[in-house]
Formats: sequence, C-alpha cells, structure tokens
Amino acid sequence: MQRWKIIIEYFGGPYCGWQRQAHCPSVQEELEKALVKLSGEQRHIQGSGRTDAGVHGLGQVAHFDLEKDLSEKSIRDGLNHHLGDNRISILSAEKVSQEFDARFSALQRHYLYRILPRRSKVAILSGHVWHLPYDRPMDVQAMHQAAQYLVGYHDFSSFRASQCQANSPMRSLDRLSVSQVGAEIHIEASARSFLHHQIRNFAGTLARVGLGKWSAEQVKEVLEAKDRRLAGETAPPDGLYFMQVDYDAPTVPYIYLPE
Amino acid sequence: MQRWKIIIEYFGGPYCGWQRQAHCPSVQEELEKALVKLSGEQRHIQGSGRTDAGVHGLGQVAHFDLEKDLSEKSIRDGLNHHLGDNRISILSAEKVSQEFDARFSALQRHYLYRILPRRSKVAILSGHVWHLPYDRPMDVQAMHQAAQYLVGYHDFSSFRASQCQANSPMRSLDRLSVSQVGAEIHIEASARSFLHHQIRNFAGTLARVGLGKWSAEQVKEVLEAKDRRLAGETAPPDGLYFMQVDYDAPTVPYIYLPE
Repeated sequence: MQRWKIIIEYFGGPYCGWQRQAHCPSVQEELEKALVKLSGEQRHIQGSGRTDAGVHGLGQVAHFDLEKDLSEKSIRDGLNHHLGDNRISILSAEKVSQEFDARFSALQRHYLYRILPRRSKVAILSGHVWHLPYDRPMDVQAMHQAAQYLVGYHDFSSFRASQCQANSPMRSLDRLSVSQVGAEIHIEASARSFLHHQIRNFAGTLARVGLGKWSAEQVKEVLEAKDRRLAGETAPPDGLYFMQVDYDAPTVPYIYLPE
Repeated sequence: MQRWKIIIEYFGGPYCGWQRQAHCPSVQEELEKALVKLSGEQRHIQGSGRTDAGVHGLGQVAHFDLEKDLSEKSIRDGLNHHLGDNRISILSAEKVSQEFDARFSALQRHYLYRILPRRSKVAILSGHVWHLPYDRPMDVQAMHQAAQYLVGYHDFSSFRASQCQANSPMRSLDRLSVSQVGAEIHIEASARSFLHHQIRNFAGTLARVGLGKWSAEQVKEVLEAKDRRLAGETAPPDGLYFMQVDYDAPTVPYIYLPE
C-alpha cells in the first residue's frame, strides 16, 4: 500500500463542503468517486480539515492509500480527468510515508478572507468575495488593530459556532492581518487549527470595526466576554479560501535566536 | 431629454455579448429591460464598443437619453436593482451633455487578457482566464518582445476575424504589454479602436511564442504577411476583459515635449 498526499483547489459554490454528506455533493465524495474510476479502489480520502458549504480551497491537502502502482503524474492527471466538469482540481500528487496524516501531521493552516466593499453589486467576482454594499470606505487600519487583540492563545468562545465539535474553545492564533489589496480588503489568518466558523466570525466582527460601528477596543471586550452573542455575524462562505497547510516546521524563524 | 453616461461591469459567461441579438441574452438587452422597469422609457443604450460572447467588462461605458428626471444615485441603484440576478452591475451613472457619445467620443480603449498556464485544470478561475494546460513555464520576455512588433500603425489583416465589419484593416496600436502577475500572464492592450477578434488573435499568437513554438521575430513576419491564416488561433473569450474607455485626452504625456 502506498500513501499519497494530494493538494487540491476547488471552487466551493456547488458543494456542501469538504466532508462527504448523504444528500448533497461534497468535494471529498467527488474525489473518492474519481479515485474509484482511476484505480478501481474505493478509498477514504482524508482532508487536512473540513471546509463549510461554499468555502473555497486553494491549497487543501488530503491523503489516501492505494494498492495500484501509479506514477505521481498519473494520479494528478488521472484524477483531474475523472473529476470531469467538477470545479475541483488536483494541483499535485506526491508519494509519502505511512506516517504522514493530512489532518494530524498539519502544523499550520492558512486562510484568506476577501471582502469587496462598494455600493454597486458584484458582477465578475460574485461567489468569490463577501460584498459589503456600502459607499463609504472601510477603516482598514482599525480592522488590523482590532485583529491584533485576537492574536495569541485565547478562549475563542465568542467566535465559535454553536455546532462546533471541538473539545475546547482554546486556540492559539498566530496571525490575523488585515490589508487593502486593490479594491478588496484581505484578512489573512494562520493557526495550527481553527474552531468552526472562527474565521467567518472574525470577518463579520472586523467588518463592524471597518464600517465604524465598533471601535477596535470593543473586539477585545467581545473576546474577553466569551459569549458568541456579542460578536459580529458569521460572514458568508463566498469570501473564504483555505490557502495552504504546512507540514514541515519552518526552520529558520524558530532556530534563529538573537543574542 | 437628459443624456446619461454609465460605467458597467459584467461577467460575460451567460451572455452572447454586448450587442442585442434575436435569440440569446445580451448585456445591452438586459440593461434596456432594466431601464424600462426603472423609468418606463424604452431607450437604445449605446455601448462604447461591442464585446463578443463570453468576454467580460470591467469598465464598459454606454450612453442613453431619458425624459424622466432621476438622480445619479437613482439611476445607478435603480438599474442595479432591476438587473436582478444578472451578472451585470452599474458602477456609476453621470449626467453628460448631448455631445457625449459613448462610441464616437472614445479616445482610447483598454483591454486585459489573462492566461493561466499550468498543467492542472482550473477550478476557481474557470471562465475567468484562458487555461493553457502545459507543464513548462512560458517565456514572458519573448512574448513581450514579440508584442512590440505589433505596436504602432499597421495593417492588421493577419489578426482580423473574417467576419470583421470595419472598413479598413489599418489600426494604431498604442500599447501591447506582456507581464507575469502571480501565476498568470497578463496582456494589456490599448488603442483608439480594435478590429474584430484582434486582441484574442494577438493572445493566441503570443501564446505560441511563450510556449517556444515560434520566435518573437516570426510575429513580425506574420504581421507583414497580412494573412489571417498565418497567425495563431483565436484565444477563448474567457480571458478577455474590457477594462476602461478614455474620453478626455490625457494632457500631460501629449503636452510634454522634451528638448
């Protein structure tokens, strides 16, 4: 048995999320169906993490085991072929050791949340961004300042979905940066793991700061209150992209110790 | 009667192009229908130029006349409301004088063509770029060099669609730049006007150079041959964006005369 690691891009719109479900198409199910067509083997494909309905993947990672001996190129191109019209693409396929687990070996997960604030509706990027239909410019600096209160090891109960299945609301958030990129506002989030809806709840909350409804300091109070009802709304899935998963510890920044 | 200038964004996928046609939805028709709903007046909406089926608009401009007295905000928001689920958005509406003509007053038109060269299929940007499914990197410098042979006043018969209705194949191409932008290759084209399929034929031809099938100099030979059969294929509409139309002469670059 060979273990395989694949990197996957998908447009979330047509799917009810990563995870296989009974009555709606999922990315996992479409991948497993393509793998059967390619290899004749029915295998579980384990993702590095679930994504909700409508959330996009730019660098989702998954692993599976296969009896059939195939080249890396055959896995990548063969799965892409059998995925047909699905908005799912295999970016790479790599042989890995049995110790590799897409979920449990992950050291860091990176997400991007895209907001497009403008009065007019969105024609070209509909489904790709969160459209905030306001005329006034958003205060990106205040959003970034508010985001810094959330970085670190905290009880994130205020930003956790009620249906979240994690044992603990404690998480270490390593990065939450807000910046203007052309007409869009980008929120970049990095952590070992996230709670259910955590980034979309961050986005909904930071949008309130950007629109001047809340001060940056109020986000600190919301965090400390540990009460989901006090944070902003859950931003739509359209703007969320699962960008990258890191498996190897980044060596330089951790080894370098200034005197 | 008040003349109005509107700037329009649209995703070309669902439309058979800008121009109203008998048996398929066009951007012009959807706009005219929205205008009737808003004002009760059936008016011709004149675009600055046609775009083919599937081509996108980021800054298409059009004009129309209206009896009804409405504010700029009411035109913009009202048309957007009545456009409903169409992938068409009014970015701005402005009162202009009767001398303004979206088509004939235009001094410069700017287009962008986006190519995504990579082996794996395109999931997120499908319909937004021209996907070239090759493993090897494209030679962007050679593409840019080849493009410079096309800049200037030329007979563009080699890059003109057979169904082109222009009286003359002579055009002045002011800019044709090729650059790498992230994983994409962008071709930016500026001219007072273009022939039918001119930019898509440029893209198909420059792609041959980028893939190493042709030298940059061959593009010069193709131009000089004035024979459409010698140029590259017509690249798909998915990658083409009508970016901007200039109506006021850019003053500084034309006034400045170095000694």
